[in-house]
Amino acid sequence: MPHSRFRSPLTERYASNEMAEIFSDQKRYSTFRKLWLKLAIAQKKIGLDISDVQINEMKASINDIDFLKVHEYEKKFRHDVVAHIHAFGDKCPKAKSIIHLGATSCYVTDNADLILMREGIKLLLSKLIKIIHFLSDFAKKEAATACIGYTHFQPAQPTTVGKRACLWLQDLLMDFNQGKNLLGSIPFLGVKGATGTQASFLNLFDGDEQKVKELDQSVASSFGFKKTLIISGQTYSRKIDCLIMQFLENVAVTTHKLATDLRLLSHTQEIREKFGKDQVGSSAMPYKKNPIYAERICSLARFLVSLSQNPSYTAATQWLERSLDDSANRRISMPEAFLTADSICNITFVVVQSLSVNYEKINSQINESLPYFCMENILMMAVKKGADRQKIHEELRKLAQSDLKEFFKEIENRKEFGLSKEDIKVACDIKNLTGRAESQVYEFLEKEVFPVIKDNQNLQATIPVLDV
Amino acid sequence: MPHSRFRSPLTERYASNEMAEIFSDQKRYSTFRKLWLKLAIAQKKIGLDISDVQINEMKASINDIDFLKVHEYEKKFRHDVVAHIHAFGDKCPKAKSIIHLGATSCYVTDNADLILMREGIKLLLSKLIKIIHFLSDFAKKEAATACIGYTHFQPAQPTTVGKRACLWLQDLLMDFNQGKNLLGSIPFLGVKGATGTQASFLNLFDGDEQKVKELDQSVASSFGFKKTLIISGQTYSRKIDCLIMQFLENVAVTTHKLATDLRLLSHTQEIREKFGKDQVGSSAMPYKKNPIYAERICSLARFLVSLSQNPSYTAATQWLERSLDDSANRRISMPEAFLTADSICNITFVVVQSLSVNYEKINSQINESLPYFCMENILMMAVKKGADRQKIHEELRKLAQSDLKEFFKEIENRKEFGLSKEDIKVACDIKNLTGRAESQVYEFLEKEVFPVIKDNQNLQATIPVLDV
Amino acid sequence: MPHSRFRSPLTERYASNEMAEIFSDQKRYSTFRKLWLKLAIAQKKIGLDISDVQINEMKASINDIDFLKVHEYEKKFRHDVVAHIHAFGDKCPKAKSIIHLGATSCYVTDNADLILMREGIKLLLSKLIKIIHFLSDFAKKEAATACIGYTHFQPAQPTTVGKRACLWLQDLLMDFNQGKNLLGSIPFLGVKGATGTQASFLNLFDGDEQKVKELDQSVASSFGFKKTLIISGQTYSRKIDCLIMQFLENVAVTTHKLATDLRLLSHTQEIREKFGKDQVGSSAMPYKKNPIYAERICSLARFLVSLSQNPSYTAATQWLERSLDDSANRRISMPEAFLTADSICNITFVVVQSLSVNYEKINSQINESLPYFCMENILMMAVKKGADRQKIHEELRKLAQSDLKEFFKEIENRKEFGLSKEDIKVACDIKNLTGRAESQVYEFLEKEVFPVIKDNQNLQATIPVLDV
Amino acid sequence: MPHSRFRSPLTERYASNEMAEIFSDQKRYSTFRKLWLKLAIAQKKIGLDISDVQINEMKASINDIDFLKVHEYEKKFRHDVVAHIHAFGDKCPKAKSIIHLGATSCYVTDNADLILMREGIKLLLSKLIKIIHFLSDFAKKEAATACIGYTHFQPAQPTTVGKRACLWLQDLLMDFNQGKNLLGSIPFLGVKGATGTQASFLNLFDGDEQKVKELDQSVASSFGFKKTLIISGQTYSRKIDCLIMQFLENVAVTTHKLATDLRLLSHTQEIREKFGKDQVGSSAMPYKKNPIYAERICSLARFLVSLSQNPSYTAATQWLERSLDDSANRRISMPEAFLTADSICNITFVVVQSLSVNYEKINSQINESLPYFCMENILMMAVKKGADRQKIHEELRKLAQSDLKEFFKEIENRKEFGLSKEDIKVACDIKNLTGRAESQVYEFLEKEVFPVIKDNQNLQATIPVLDV
Repeated sequence: MPHSRFRSPLTERYASNEMAEIFSDQKRYSTFRKLWLKLAIAQKKIGLDISDVQINEMKASINDIDFLKVHEYEKKFRHDVVAHIHAFGDKCPKAKSIIHLGATSCYVTDNADLILMREGIKLLLSKLIKIIHFLSDFAKKEAATACIGYTHFQPAQPTTVGKRACLWLQDLLMDFNQGKNLLGSIPFLGVKGATGTQASFLNLFDGDEQKVKELDQSVASSFGFKKTLIISGQTYSRKIDCLIMQFLENVAVTTHKLATDLRLLSHTQEIREKFGKDQVGSSAMPYKKNPIYAERICSLARFLVSLSQNPSYTAATQWLERSLDDSANRRISMPEAFLTADSICNITFVVVQSLSVNYEKINSQINESLPYFCMENILMMAVKKGADRQKIHEELRKLAQSDLKEFFKEIENRKEFGLSKEDIKVACDIKNLTGRAESQVYEFLEKEVFPVIKDNQNLQATIPVLDV
Repeated sequence: MPHSRFRSPLTERYASNEMAEIFSDQKRYSTFRKLWLKLAIAQKKIGLDISDVQINEMKASINDIDFLKVHEYEKKFRHDVVAHIHAFGDKCPKAKSIIHLGATSCYVTDNADLILMREGIKLLLSKLIKIIHFLSDFAKKEAATACIGYTHFQPAQPTTVGKRACLWLQDLLMDFNQGKNLLGSIPFLGVKGATGTQASFLNLFDGDEQKVKELDQSVASSFGFKKTLIISGQTYSRKIDCLIMQFLENVAVTTHKLATDLRLLSHTQEIREKFGKDQVGSSAMPYKKNPIYAERICSLARFLVSLSQNPSYTAATQWLERSLDDSANRRISMPEAFLTADSICNITFVVVQSLSVNYEKINSQINESLPYFCMENILMMAVKKGADRQKIHEELRKLAQSDLKEFFKEIENRKEFGLSKEDIKVACDIKNLTGRAESQVYEFLEKEVFPVIKDNQNLQATIPVLDV
Repeated sequence: MPHSRFRSPLTERYASNEMAEIFSDQKRYSTFRKLWLKLAIAQKKIGLDISDVQINEMKASINDIDFLKVHEYEKKFRHDVVAHIHAFGDKCPKAKSIIHLGATSCYVTDNADLILMREGIKLLLSKLIKIIHFLSDFAKKEAATACIGYTHFQPAQPTTVGKRACLWLQDLLMDFNQGKNLLGSIPFLGVKGATGTQASFLNLFDGDEQKVKELDQSVASSFGFKKTLIISGQTYSRKIDCLIMQFLENVAVTTHKLATDLRLLSHTQEIREKFGKDQVGSSAMPYKKNPIYAERICSLARFLVSLSQNPSYTAATQWLERSLDDSANRRISMPEAFLTADSICNITFVVVQSLSVNYEKINSQINESLPYFCMENILMMAVKKGADRQKIHEELRKLAQSDLKEFFKEIENRKEFGLSKEDIKVACDIKNLTGRAESQVYEFLEKEVFPVIKDNQNLQATIPVLDV
Repeated sequence: MPHSRFRSPLTERYASNEMAEIFSDQKRYSTFRKLWLKLAIAQKKIGLDISDVQINEMKASINDIDFLKVHEYEKKFRHDVVAHIHAFGDKCPKAKSIIHLGATSCYVTDNADLILMREGIKLLLSKLIKIIHFLSDFAKKEAATACIGYTHFQPAQPTTVGKRACLWLQDLLMDFNQGKNLLGSIPFLGVKGATGTQASFLNLFDGDEQKVKELDQSVASSFGFKKTLIISGQTYSRKIDCLIMQFLENVAVTTHKLATDLRLLSHTQEIREKFGKDQVGSSAMPYKKNPIYAERICSLARFLVSLSQNPSYTAATQWLERSLDDSANRRISMPEAFLTADSICNITFVVVQSLSVNYEKINSQINESLPYFCMENILMMAVKKGADRQKIHEELRKLAQSDLKEFFKEIENRKEFGLSKEDIKVACDIKNLTGRAESQVYEFLEKEVFPVIKDNQNLQATIPVLDV
């Protein structure tokens, strides 16, 4: 009964089917079988006595996994790989004796993990690039839309809506580039044996090292890996998990910042995430329009950051050629990190795609703060005309604490500023207050964003639709 | 298809059915319905116009939840509580208009969470006390069994097997006591409304504050809570989650230390966890007997410690009367923390119950290190007989770096020690080397452990059986 | 040269002198000497041959520590306690041979840590109770000041300024109570020897267990500890550090939430922290008044939460009777956690003491949102008059998305609501919108806050003054 | 009085002078002044009216910082950059009016941080490469030294001492390469103004964008930065701190694993860290030789991993164009992370340089486990001769649980194995048990390690000497 036991909201509510499948049992254990198959094929090619019949038997049973039987075997042997060897052997009576030949459990577990996580990274990259694409369109469209720039969440100086979007874009781009590099550099553990020395394989090939190296390379390339580790213990170095996790963590950090900004801008009513026609904001307050997707991003991102310490402490506490205190932890923390990152990307995608800008609000707010904003211009202009910087700064600071309604007149009256009415008008023109914001947007998009979008057009992502 | 999507190993492999049920959808949402029922009952009692027919309609549909329909409603309304109100309303056409009367979503979500987590704590306590019980038997049995005491994982001074078990017991007892206090002090959110002011309920009762307070108390006591919060925002203070999580984290810390010790003692072959008749240690090395359960405890405990920062950062970043960036996070992190703690307790229980002590190994190891162990005794005895402490310490330190085969003779020969052959024999009697270890065990069990076991005999736990 | 090496901003900028002194070398190492002194006094009393001359020699040199000499000894011996024994011995030539008699390093290191951390907790409690005191005055004063209650940082329903302060107070009170319990339950390690068996002391007293227990108790009570651990390894269980850290972490969580609220309210201009007469908000924008103290609280609180995982992982990874991988970590993480908590309390104290409420802003904002706020009242009133809850909820939800200027008229016109002009006026009276907020403040203060303040009047804290 | 306040053990005990200086006040604030100087030089060059006299005045006062005066100013202005502007202005009466012209505080704080952290990374890389160098010598020397390979800390299959060192080397190399990439890609914030729009500078240059860009580039290149950010808020994206911290964290993970291995091998007595001639292992047990440096690495590494979450949560919670809740946190967490990484590298360097291998112990241990180790060979050989893999595996598993003294004879006797005495001898030759371990060492060193060492010969590190 599915509803009578806890089910992770990650699979039930938040993550996409694609990601949930990558980390499914079906996928994981059929990948085990593919690894056994490719091992046998390579062993046969390099000279071991393995028949086509055996190979074909294995090929035919890649996906046909009897999970109940596996479970029974595992109860008996207390070893999940041994259970899967037996269950696969049941399907392949002729190949039985050569399944897993020379291998240790980590041949399947670790190589499978690397294969699956590589797929996970690819999926995330395809979503990130879509988000970047949408957001770059948005940034371009709003490149010149002046709005309040906030420091300390207090009005500081004007910026533009598009420029602010570039703050998010820049962070997303960092993540995408990190993920892209990672994808290209994930190695294969290969065929290494119980303590990584390949001793059992060397025996199989009567001490011929070249054949062992060929076996290693052959299996790796059949799974599309360019690099095979020369050095390993029983497992690949768990620091590789750290590098993968740091990429996922960085996606969380980026989107948490983006979503927090949206929640604040939702308060000021400058920008809103989409609100569905039938959506209910609150069970008690019918008028509520809450930025629930932005909040959900923060919620999940925080969870992902907490997951990120698992591989660090796990790698740090591995003992010698391996200890098993990584196993249960990795089984949970790595897939959940991918599922969470996937959930976050899906939501971010939907949010970014549907941002609604309230130009009226933005303008009225900027006008309210105009006296503040042009103070720096006034300061600069006064200094240029010969006034002492520290002194003018001090006067403006005090002025800022009084009523601002007569601000412009006050400046005009004070001789020490040395500014005419016309000067003041120029200093307070909104066009002169957003500096290079618009130009920065174009410069950034052209130099850093568009080339990446162009180079990665092949990354196809299904458009995520949120269920809840 | 259950195997085609990621499923949490916590529910699929590690946690007990009992704990998985506490955090199931069925349990959670039927608790929502109970909360709506009890609210209506109390409202009726205090004077609102609610009929028995309505009450009985609700009562009849507590467990009959149509999850598919809920999902459809949620897709439409984007609000899970609203979806459940509608689905419940469909079952109760007459009660429909009074379901959730005056309430906000957190009335059901937060109170349900407190109810479920209280059950989770109770379940854990029942397991902890069983572990404590078994371990105290073990400690008593091995109170006098001398073994090497290790500091820096180097032989230091003898202790006893039972005394070492008391190190674990003491930590477990700390956790149990913390959990027991927690259980007694978890408050109910009660009936508080959208921003915690009870405004809607005050309206319902025409401004009669006494009635609102009565409503609050009445619902709380119908769920067995002694304390209802006077103060809340829309939610209960998320710091309560922190306190709950700190208890769970502490269980992880305790068992990680215990299991690490067992892994080290498994290496020295002093103590082993049970190894099943058909158990397979390794798919490549038939002779392996690995402490896989102790390793699994460490693996899961590390995961739980990482979860523990979620409520801290979540509570710390809540905005004003509430923000929703707690929701998705709490839905995952709190149940998973309970499931992980439960898994750990199950494994610890099985491990502790089946510890096998290798007396032969223990003795042979102690004899090997005897010259080292009696050095302090020799030092003390020499000092008592008038020698200078620093000087003797220095000489022994140098001696310790030479071959130890002639150690006892060497001491006898050195005049500055002033010790006879007989003195040395006394100094090196193993009985004189374990100090008060045995007595400490009895003192500790009687003063601190047995009273707790006795006071908590009512906590019944099913004996966990590990499936994998 | 103090400025030529990194110095911790905790001591240089943020923490109080009192806390910085508690964790100073002078304090720590003079406490070592006190521990040696009290050990000798107790040993003498129970029968060892120790003279008054030796005792007096030790007494005279408690504070006179030659740190340069200690450093030389440590370079030689690579052991800091041994270095301090030698340096103390140099000052006490007659007592030299009996200093540290029977003890292991942890006798001084661990007992000193417990003594110092107990002082640290006491100092924090004295600050917390002052903060609670001020904040309860504030809550009382503003108990009835209606303001917007925010959920999702969107206007939800009115609450009062005092009620919101009670959200903070409740969290602070939880922390204070936790700290108070902790203070009362911190145990002393006592006199336990190399692996905790007291073997060396049993030898010193010729196997007389009673004398060893008396020694243990005697030293403990001379430092004012009620409880001595029966069970220890070489060290006290590192889980005690976890409990201490969890208290500190909780203070961080509470104040981070409080300060975040203030930063948001500083944006809405409802409440501000004090801004100094000569204070400069920004080097570029003279008009800026930033909530820098609230921001600093968040900054430091986040750091403290990160520190809090140190004792968890440290305790979890201790090996058997002790391993030294706790030492350097505890030397940094525990004092820094205390210093950070102290810094946070100082700033919170100053902030809380100087909160400035902008009543005008608060009122104008509440009026703007009035149509929203009275919707629930209108909903409730309509339901009471017989309307269908779900239907009215739906209509209001849609209304809320239109222009609100004609809201009250609109309601009046719609027959299905069944409300007269007078009804609507009552429903929208601000007095009827804050519910029990004011009463809750009084109830909470009287039942939970004032008794604690009264019971802890003896906790005297110097009023913190912030330097920077 | 330096000893009367807490001082960070990082500076007082563990870190090198070089690293402590990089993060000193003197270095930080003189870098501020250099930044003001270079800004003025560039502004003058591009056309602002700044005189050589002003430039020279600034040049002359770069290092002459009156910290007491700064402190007084800061007490008054509550703004540290403003305080430093005033203090610098006091030294440069003529330049006073043009110091900080057009700039906001982050021009100096953020650019200085990037400059200093870049120096810190360079220093760490110079130490890492030395560690890699020493360890590669060690690996080469011990490439063929057979020893027990441990999985689950149980004997698994033989490996070699040099091969195990390559596990550590591989991790170190990953870190080094990551750090090297980082060093090359750290950008400069440049000259961006209050909200990153460069508005104030655009004003200074009468709207001439080219001049503003030239200013930006000019200052960046005067500090040796290749890349200047196009996009920033008031600050550079705090995600850059995350990337830096992830490098530091990875160093901690690597060395924690390495040091844990050494602590375990110190127990088995296979390898020891150096023990000083006068070193004291314990104040109570003169014979103790504890792996205190390896333990200290673990202790500090754990602290560094905990620090690593600070930039993640800080970047994630930054609001809009900047919020100040990063400031106090970054002031502590970033320098402490560098100091801790530096401490760890120093200790690792000393430990790695002085590893002492106990060949006798290694050999005797391997012989004890020989029957186990050759089981896989026997299994493989038997399978090659036609036996069923699962069946032989099963038999060996059971044999492994009996007494092993008659193991070799037993195998010979069992017909189903089909192995002669000679076969068994070959299967159990230690040369045939370490597989490709030796070859892997050479392959790895030549392909991956030596090229990196060669390419980085210019990185000079002072040989660290540990004081305590």
